[in-house]
Amino acid sequence: MKTKVAIVGYGNLGKAIYNNITQSDEFELVGIFSRRQLPNVLHISKLSEYKDKIDLIFLCMGSKTDLEQYGEKLIKDFNIVDSYDNHNKLKTYIKKVDAIAKQNNKTYICSVGWDPGLFSYMRCLIYCLGLTPHTFWGKGLSQGHTQAIKNIKGVKDGLQFTIPNAVALNNIKTGKQNKLPLHNRVCYVVANKQDMARIKNEIVTMPDYFFGYDTKVHFVSQEKLNSLKNYSHKGCVLSTGNIINFSLSLSSNPDFNASIMIAYSRAIKYISQHGKYGAYTILDIPAKYILRDKEDKFKFL
Amino acid sequence: MKTKVAIVGYGNLGKAIYNNITQSDEFELVGIFSRRQLPNVLHISKLSEYKDKIDLIFLCMGSKTDLEQYGEKLIKDFNIVDSYDNHNKLKTYIKKVDAIAKQNNKTYICSVGWDPGLFSYMRCLIYCLGLTPHTFWGKGLSQGHTQAIKNIKGVKDGLQFTIPNAVALNNIKTGKQNKLPLHNRVCYVVANKQDMARIKNEIVTMPDYFFGYDTKVHFVSQEKLNSLKNYSHKGCVLSTGNIINFSLSLSSNPDFNASIMIAYSRAIKYISQHGKYGAYTILDIPAKYILRDKEDKFKFL
Repeated sequence: MKTKVAIVGYGNLGKAIYNNITQSDEFELVGIFSRRQLPNVLHISKLSEYKDKIDLIFLCMGSKTDLEQYGEKLIKDFNIVDSYDNHNKLKTYIKKVDAIAKQNNKTYICSVGWDPGLFSYMRCLIYCLGLTPHTFWGKGLSQGHTQAIKNIKGVKDGLQFTIPNAVALNNIKTGKQNKLPLHNRVCYVVANKQDMARIKNEIVTMPDYFFGYDTKVHFVSQEKLNSLKNYSHKGCVLSTGNIINFSLSLSSNPDFNASIMIAYSRAIKYISQHGKYGAYTILDIPAKYILRDKEDKFKFL
Repeated sequence: MKTKVAIVGYGNLGKAIYNNITQSDEFELVGIFSRRQLPNVLHISKLSEYKDKIDLIFLCMGSKTDLEQYGEKLIKDFNIVDSYDNHNKLKTYIKKVDAIAKQNNKTYICSVGWDPGLFSYMRCLIYCLGLTPHTFWGKGLSQGHTQAIKNIKGVKDGLQFTIPNAVALNNIKTGKQNKLPLHNRVCYVVANKQDMARIKNEIVTMPDYFFGYDTKVHFVSQEKLNSLKNYSHKGCVLSTGNIINFSLSLSSNPDFNASIMIAYSRAIKYISQHGKYGAYTILDIPAKYILRDKEDKFKFL
């Protein structure tokens, strides 16, 4: 029997989920829901009519804005899978939706992307083996840092690429002590000439985001900026001395997160069968639960 | 409270477990048991006297010979962790000890090494994300192939190193079709001159082990052979196109397997608390169960 699903939120991630599940015989798409008016997309206010007609929701709203607010509401009526990525607020959010999910006999699979998600798993594993984990992201576009640039007065458009610091990476791989920042930051900004000096200064001195990093700021035309946009990304989690190294090289960041959400959505069936409702992360879910047929596990041993 | 443990079998792996746990405040070593007469080691016949004095056994006997026979017997009275690595017999063995463990309210954590173990997990994960997993081992000493050489008449001593085929690895990394064997085999043999031609022929034509591979056979002195022995090993599991690549580079194969067994031994406490007795592999165990304190999981997200 096919799993009946809805997609809630229809940006890059929602579209990646759509493309993936419509190529598979595993899922039946009941509907796509959004707050925006889009062709072939239902308004989110209609979702409550589908309360008993959906096995699970792929929640694809933005982590910075709407996801929490909708997640807390929807978990009362639906099972949910998301790739919520606000690391600082995760613990509080998960504890909150765990309680609501338990009260309503629902299951919430939270933060199953590549980070948080696969990288969280690797950090935990490396730590538990008595080693020290380190995480490098990039080269790739950082949503949070891009938004931080765009918030500066006079910035018409911007992009921020996170790039591993090759010397720091080599220090960690070879087991040397490392005091360098792990990442360099390269910014592309569209602005008027008279604002450039101030904007550059505001970027490189911005606490948390850029201060203390090797930050390069390039002023470019809107056309040039548009040509730089792409969804490829890379990253790795490794132990000091490179005993363990888990690397990703993605042509499409949203496509890859979608494939992780789809794999972990399979856990909802098994968890519900055992009546173990609540909120789960990748660290709570055994690998056999992401298989369509649990018995297949023996072929990977 | 410290976990009371015994080590059963005292070869390279048993010694690696010993070195690891005696440097930690997590375990209390109740005893080391072996069939051999060794200083500070108890005879295995004494183990039954410790029935209620041991939380778990690290079972460190050889997979090819004794492990199955002892595992089936000991699981009636003890919780067990091993790194049993006979891929072909795993499924049958696990189903058998699962039944015995359930009857006796015991937990058996089976095959938690790097392969089977961490590599099994990665193959399963890659498959579940809709990608195709490939496994490369080496460069490193292969116990099974080394034994196959030693079984040939006239071979006084031997070693077999498994080495990834660089062209095959590159084909898979770049997403090209690959029809080459994934590994080359390099053999070092000590033998009398008159036996060499026959031995070489018997090696390169041996079905399953060497036939169809690029196999090199070097005849060397016993001193040279001794100088080549070492416990370093490498390997990786990757997806076609290298989207995901999980690599290990180990200075000591037994030390690393010991650290995996120790991490997964922590799962016994959580599984027993829930009364979920039986046999488990790495694919059945969530990452939080290998943490000393489950609540720590949030710091890896």
